[in-house]
Amino acid sequence: MPPQPRTGKTGTEVWRFERGRGEARPDNVATEEPLEIRLLWEGGERTVAVTMRTPGNDEELAAGFLYAEGVVDRRERILALRHVTDSGETEPNIIEVELGEGPDPNLPTLERHFFSNSSCGVCGKAGLAALQLRVTSGAGRLPPGPEVAPEILSSLPDRLREAQGIFEATGGLHAAALFDTSGGLLALREDVGRHNALDKLFGWAFLQGLLPLHDHLVLVSGRSSYEILQKCLVAGVPILCAVSAPSSLAVELATRFGITLVGFLRGDRFNVYSGIERIS
Amino acid sequence: MPPQPRTGKTGTEVWRFERGRGEARPDNVATEEPLEIRLLWEGGERTVAVTMRTPGNDEELAAGFLYAEGVVDRRERILALRHVTDSGETEPNIIEVELGEGPDPNLPTLERHFFSNSSCGVCGKAGLAALQLRVTSGAGRLPPGPEVAPEILSSLPDRLREAQGIFEATGGLHAAALFDTSGGLLALREDVGRHNALDKLFGWAFLQGLLPLHDHLVLVSGRSSYEILQKCLVAGVPILCAVSAPSSLAVELATRFGITLVGFLRGDRFNVYSGIERIS
Repeated sequence: MPPQPRTGKTGTEVWRFERGRGEARPDNVATEEPLEIRLLWEGGERTVAVTMRTPGNDEELAAGFLYAEGVVDRRERILALRHVTDSGETEPNIIEVELGEGPDPNLPTLERHFFSNSSCGVCGKAGLAALQLRVTSGAGRLPPGPEVAPEILSSLPDRLREAQGIFEATGGLHAAALFDTSGGLLALREDVGRHNALDKLFGWAFLQGLLPLHDHLVLVSGRSSYEILQKCLVAGVPILCAVSAPSSLAVELATRFGITLVGFLRGDRFNVYSGIERIS
Repeated sequence: MPPQPRTGKTGTEVWRFERGRGEARPDNVATEEPLEIRLLWEGGERTVAVTMRTPGNDEELAAGFLYAEGVVDRRERILALRHVTDSGETEPNIIEVELGEGPDPNLPTLERHFFSNSSCGVCGKAGLAALQLRVTSGAGRLPPGPEVAPEILSSLPDRLREAQGIFEATGGLHAAALFDTSGGLLALREDVGRHNALDKLFGWAFLQGLLPLHDHLVLVSGRSSYEILQKCLVAGVPILCAVSAPSSLAVELATRFGITLVGFLRGDRFNVYSGIERIS
């Protein structure tokens, strides 16, 4: 039997203080462990990433990551996804992705991409230019539509919270959720890293054959930054909602590529930073 | 005159919705731009990182980053820190770090380190082993003390908030602050990336000649993860407090290296995950 991934929470003991007095009690924290992603293809084998993640949905994380980075572009390219262990390892913290026939994966690009923290270029303009190139070679600027009512947007955070299992127990996870335009929850993924939560979500959609997500909404539990926008853009998401603030580069990317960017989504209050035409 | 870094907030226009009705108004978001860190030494020149950051305190960010990664170990090693522009660039998004005499910087390690998201090893144990090696070759397990009263800890979040300038205007920045054991605020740094906020803070301490920070407390605005613990450990911080939850690996590192790890620090309530002996 292949090794099984561990669960998302880890038991620990904590001293809980209140008004100057503390008592020891058991508690749970969000599990954080490294995952190595190894690529295997006819011409070779290579480790392409090591990322700190919460165990669970590792196959989706690997698939979503490789899709976001442009290494795979269609479901059929992936022959197999499996946990492996090196000798001496006890935890299943390696995932092997076997590619089917096709051109050699574009790893120099990947290398450059990984240079630090998944930034994509040496200067802002170079980075944006490179991104634009990748996007326009694929989906291009997002098509118009769909339209959603403000009430739908306002309903999303509660639906996210209801579905968040591990977060309830630990308070330590980021979440990313996919909704249809009626506000129905299609999938939710959690991770200590917000980029990982999104990679898992889009990896699920990729493996299900749902990409591009032109008729869907994504909600992330935290802030929206360059990295979050980039991943949504590649997955074709027209409406990105965040519970917290966007960065300047997130607003710039959303405006340039036609994404509706919603921030500070809390109950019936929210801000729309770009793409107001999709709010009906 | 060398180019000047931009400020931490960027003006934008936003549609603010409440109860289904929206109105357009001006707003500010946290600035996010790439920074390239270039290393210049007798034997060569190389870009060692591109990170998405909030402009401001770039010199500290570069110094703190290079210190955390083990490229420089003392203030005197850095001859100069300066913003430069390539021809055609209009934003000062490149910082050049000129090293003085000494051994060639250990860049292969750096490369491995950067492989993805600053993770430090291929598996958890390898990563922890590598970290332990680096730490024990320097400071080792942190020395005992200092002790602080619960009331001091409880006072820190308010002091942080009072000093947070850009966050007030944008809601989009992480903060890292350095305190003395009486709760006095020594320095505060903000950034869209939490690792950047910490690099700026420790970069400031490094350039001031204050390292190691054995008699200080650090407070971060978000969660504590592997990466945060790693940076605190290298800087010699005995007490790390976070407003939100720790990850399992943060608790493991804190326990192993003797750091007092405080989480969910909110008013007179907080949790202590390790190093309870420093709470008096």
